[in-house]
Amino acid sequence: MMPSYATNMRLKFSILALTLEAVTIVLYAFLVVYDTGDAHGHDGSHAESNTTHSSSPITLYPMFQDVHVMIFIGFGFLMTFLKRYGFSSVGINLLLAAFGLQWGLLLQNIWHMHDGKIRVSIEKMINADFSTATVLISFGAVLGKTSPVQLLIMTLLEITIFCINEHLVVEVLKVSDVGASMTIHAFGAYFGLAVARVLYRPGLRNGHENEGSVYHSDLFAMIGTVYLWMFWPSFNSAIAEPGDPQLRAVINTYFSLAACALAAYATSSLVEKKGKLDMVHIQNATLAGGVAVGTCADMDIQPFGAMVIGITAGVISTVGFKFLTPILASKLGIQDTCGVHNLHGMPGILGGLAGILAAALGKKAGVSPGYQACGLASSLGFALVGGLITGLIMKSPFWGQPPDQNCFDDSIFWEVPEEEEENEERLTHGDYSKNKTEA
Amino acid sequence: MMPSYATNMRLKFSILALTLEAVTIVLYAFLVVYDTGDAHGHDGSHAESNTTHSSSPITLYPMFQDVHVMIFIGFGFLMTFLKRYGFSSVGINLLLAAFGLQWGLLLQNIWHMHDGKIRVSIEKMINADFSTATVLISFGAVLGKTSPVQLLIMTLLEITIFCINEHLVVEVLKVSDVGASMTIHAFGAYFGLAVARVLYRPGLRNGHENEGSVYHSDLFAMIGTVYLWMFWPSFNSAIAEPGDPQLRAVINTYFSLAACALAAYATSSLVEKKGKLDMVHIQNATLAGGVAVGTCADMDIQPFGAMVIGITAGVISTVGFKFLTPILASKLGIQDTCGVHNLHGMPGILGGLAGILAAALGKKAGVSPGYQACGLASSLGFALVGGLITGLIMKSPFWGQPPDQNCFDDSIFWEVPEEEEENEERLTHGDYSKNKTEA
Amino acid sequence: MMPSYATNMRLKFSILALTLEAVTIVLYAFLVVYDTGDAHGHDGSHAESNTTHSSSPITLYPMFQDVHVMIFIGFGFLMTFLKRYGFSSVGINLLLAAFGLQWGLLLQNIWHMHDGKIRVSIEKMINADFSTATVLISFGAVLGKTSPVQLLIMTLLEITIFCINEHLVVEVLKVSDVGASMTIHAFGAYFGLAVARVLYRPGLRNGHENEGSVYHSDLFAMIGTVYLWMFWPSFNSAIAEPGDPQLRAVINTYFSLAACALAAYATSSLVEKKGKLDMVHIQNATLAGGVAVGTCADMDIQPFGAMVIGITAGVISTVGFKFLTPILASKLGIQDTCGVHNLHGMPGILGGLAGILAAALGKKAGVSPGYQACGLASSLGFALVGGLITGLIMKSPFWGQPPDQNCFDDSIFWEVPEEEEENEERLTHGDYSKNKTEA
Repeated sequence: MMPSYATNMRLKFSILALTLEAVTIVLYAFLVVYDTGDAHGHDGSHAESNTTHSSSPITLYPMFQDVHVMIFIGFGFLMTFLKRYGFSSVGINLLLAAFGLQWGLLLQNIWHMHDGKIRVSIEKMINADFSTATVLISFGAVLGKTSPVQLLIMTLLEITIFCINEHLVVEVLKVSDVGASMTIHAFGAYFGLAVARVLYRPGLRNGHENEGSVYHSDLFAMIGTVYLWMFWPSFNSAIAEPGDPQLRAVINTYFSLAACALAAYATSSLVEKKGKLDMVHIQNATLAGGVAVGTCADMDIQPFGAMVIGITAGVISTVGFKFLTPILASKLGIQDTCGVHNLHGMPGILGGLAGILAAALGKKAGVSPGYQACGLASSLGFALVGGLITGLIMKSPFWGQPPDQNCFDDSIFWEVPEEEEENEERLTHGDYSKNKTEA
Repeated sequence: MMPSYATNMRLKFSILALTLEAVTIVLYAFLVVYDTGDAHGHDGSHAESNTTHSSSPITLYPMFQDVHVMIFIGFGFLMTFLKRYGFSSVGINLLLAAFGLQWGLLLQNIWHMHDGKIRVSIEKMINADFSTATVLISFGAVLGKTSPVQLLIMTLLEITIFCINEHLVVEVLKVSDVGASMTIHAFGAYFGLAVARVLYRPGLRNGHENEGSVYHSDLFAMIGTVYLWMFWPSFNSAIAEPGDPQLRAVINTYFSLAACALAAYATSSLVEKKGKLDMVHIQNATLAGGVAVGTCADMDIQPFGAMVIGITAGVISTVGFKFLTPILASKLGIQDTCGVHNLHGMPGILGGLAGILAAALGKKAGVSPGYQACGLASSLGFALVGGLITGLIMKSPFWGQPPDQNCFDDSIFWEVPEEEEENEERLTHGDYSKNKTEA
Repeated sequence: MMPSYATNMRLKFSILALTLEAVTIVLYAFLVVYDTGDAHGHDGSHAESNTTHSSSPITLYPMFQDVHVMIFIGFGFLMTFLKRYGFSSVGINLLLAAFGLQWGLLLQNIWHMHDGKIRVSIEKMINADFSTATVLISFGAVLGKTSPVQLLIMTLLEITIFCINEHLVVEVLKVSDVGASMTIHAFGAYFGLAVARVLYRPGLRNGHENEGSVYHSDLFAMIGTVYLWMFWPSFNSAIAEPGDPQLRAVINTYFSLAACALAAYATSSLVEKKGKLDMVHIQNATLAGGVAVGTCADMDIQPFGAMVIGITAGVISTVGFKFLTPILASKLGIQDTCGVHNLHGMPGILGGLAGILAAALGKKAGVSPGYQACGLASSLGFALVGGLITGLIMKSPFWGQPPDQNCFDDSIFWEVPEEEEENEERLTHGDYSKNKTEA
């Protein structure tokens, strides 16, 4: 082990995590209260909240839980495809999202407090969960190559920058982005790619023996894929205006994903010589339809319009995995572990463009194509600049970045069951091949 | 590899999938619109829709998502029990259901359009998901022995035939089948068994080394089992009349499944010499109570009635797995990979019979035992004839049916991680046994 | 196999399970009916039911399904961490909960019938599911060391005793315990620990080769963890008074768990020399915040109060796993397989104490600190005495307790796939090490 790598996390991780939590609790003690009914009488909260129309404060709760499942099961298990990195994928995903939702709820609502307080409702919890999705997308780009300390720092910074951009795009520019193709998916992807560029590792140019899947790790990843696929209609409709717009968001996402799935399967088979399906494509590109229909999910694009968006996203995403990801790594020095550029980046931009087109065609009242374009540009700009700055901060060796040979391996930051280490030892000591040689 | 097997899917699969999707999108462009509130004023859609009573168009959304989970996680993971066929089980399940729901929504509603349009609501999405269940049940009968191309053809034909039978039984004959014991479960099972009969493989008479589970594949399958078990009350009540009938459907299914679980465990232990539990029984027979209570789920049979149905189904299903499945294979040439005859076939018929009895006892107003019997006969008839015809069409070697030795193996249609192939290679080259011999 | 162990379950398990189910069905035939609207007119059921306020009898259904998932997926998969005990963990969990919910629904409502009938509603189904949680917690303490027959007996007795204590605490003493920190978590933990003490096995003092995890079994366990973590807000709020108290219960649990997760990660890293995270802590201690906030979940403790409870629970739980569990085993003869003392025991008591404090500070009208203390004492007393008596009954060798060498191994009560047995055989026969020696 080279001495320059400070990968013992004992003090720095514990202190950072507990400090962040302590600061958060103090801020909550001063700023955060329940959005209970008695508070509604004397402030203007009903003006900004879509939930006050309903008779029950938990009307949105089932959709909140769907989104919650997407964040913690969906994103977490989607990344377990790596053969030796499942603990980190699902475990660090939980850590980052648990901190991120607390931080996101603060920063998203700091702009419009009432009587100096943030009033927590189910809708605000949904938005807090959403804010963590940006970090989990970026996590996919740097998966296997970063320490928990680095990732907590990224969470803190990325959610802060996300909240600034979201406020600007949604509140100031009044851009329509109900499923957040631009403000979450494109933002999270390009933020993560910028970080990955700064953290470029020449030593991994030729790949790494652990950067691949085994049979069962691919099945664990499918748990994540299928949950994301199923609950995406909730993601795109949860904060839509109740009534017809919300119903449209559900229906459009349902059909976009169905069409996208067929496109992803067809394209996956088409780009492989023997016509076989590739799990990487199935795990990811089947979801691109959910990303791409996000911006115009609540617009009057009709089911067939959603299906056209979905099929386009499925093709683009699969082709991206096959042909673009290797080029990004070799030519631009962007090592994108999970291929977030193909699942969130390009489909997010496609979603933004579809939103501009839909606005130009008048599919939603009061939405202008020009402002939509500004929203897309702002999201990309904040993502790239924010990601570069964040990457530079994360680059310090003090944060415990793992050395190249320990990348994509849980055992550097986790206790891993002995049995597995024995296997490794056998492989390392070449017992199997030795036997073969003898034979 | 024998030259007569055309298992390279590259062009035929891609072209078929994209053609089906393209035709579907064109049909949707002409026929399918949102069921938005403004449309209700001038047509009769409220007469056929149960949802218009409610204040929100998404009242049924949580139940829709439960059904969605059953279709994609439940059916998908239930079939991952095979040691080398998990990618296909959960992956092709997703593909078939994604296409099937689009096709089912069209065909189920072509019979009663308004102003020449199909108006999509959450209830119609639930029914579309339901229609795919028939295919996924039949998929279980032929699991491991068919190509994706064959299965897409089966999806197209089976859903079409299902929609004809469903229309006849539910709309014309006014048969009561809220949980679809007859129209989905018995139909799907006997359709699949008929297809399996036509595709009979003498070469698999003595089994296949891959037709079994390993420890972790059985645990993956339990994910499917438990989700189906938990959410079955939603399946049986989702389209029930709101109010007491829907509540009865939830309660009856809850208790039927609980009683069925005890019966399945007890019977599994009883039929094995050493009294051990068998995962095949636990994964499947615990669910038979949900199938069997389907037809009379919304009827006034009281909780203990539901429990009697459940316990009967659990015993019949377990006994079927133990004694009947081997006979079907050896005597009738029906190789039923997942034992759908035991989980969906016999319990589906039991459900139909229970419905006839409940109708005769007046447990639901306006339901006649004679028409109920016609509904059961029609479902079985359409299933067997439809399955035979579909099987004959699927039998063409051009569709890429795998040769016997490649059955139950993902690697013929999927890229499979190298590590596994190495293991196979080792096993094939006999390195392990060679070592043993040397010793 | 020693002759004194009667581990062939064939007759005794089947007869016990079927007898229990038959008795249950007879009792249901006489006592249990639907809580349909027409019944409300002429009895007082609306006085005791919180659900009658709502327009639909299935308003609580989404929360019921969340709780259902926690019981069957959450508890079931959480215990799959053991390398060779996954079938039992998820399978016996299903068996016990399926029987337990039928039994619990009877015993919880026997105290207040109307016209001699128990009227089943969604709320009563939620409570029935809750009652099974006590057994599943206790199951964790004796996991791997008991037979299915013993566990069915424990289910019968524990739920009976639970219902007596719950009636006393909640109905007679009017103690507030909305998330059941005391009546379910502390009760289930100390009941299970008392049983474990009676069933103490000196032969396992030095551990057992199967009492550990492998890489993929830890990932299966994370499915359980994450589902429990996500849906705990439903557990703590499902039977809260609709409106603000229910919203508070959701919000408090959400924040308590988020803060708890950070505390668990930080403490896990802190107590290990190299600062690595330990899967045992992550799988369990991240959930302690849900347990500990249970009693005062619906009280006006504000989000930061919930976070303080959560962070405390996360630290206590992790420290308990690291330092207290080994001491309990070596000094007190309490072999707590899953460490339920750390996840449910201490956090449950912490929840009770927090409730006393919150009552003293007037955070909920009509709740007295003295009665709260009585509720905690009663729950602990019934648990310890009930657990000791139940343990003595379970101790009889006739019930098929496995011998020490077969503990933590599915194959004594389950058919296990052959491939695994081959592996075992290879390991037993020392083929691998033999090869190594040769080399």
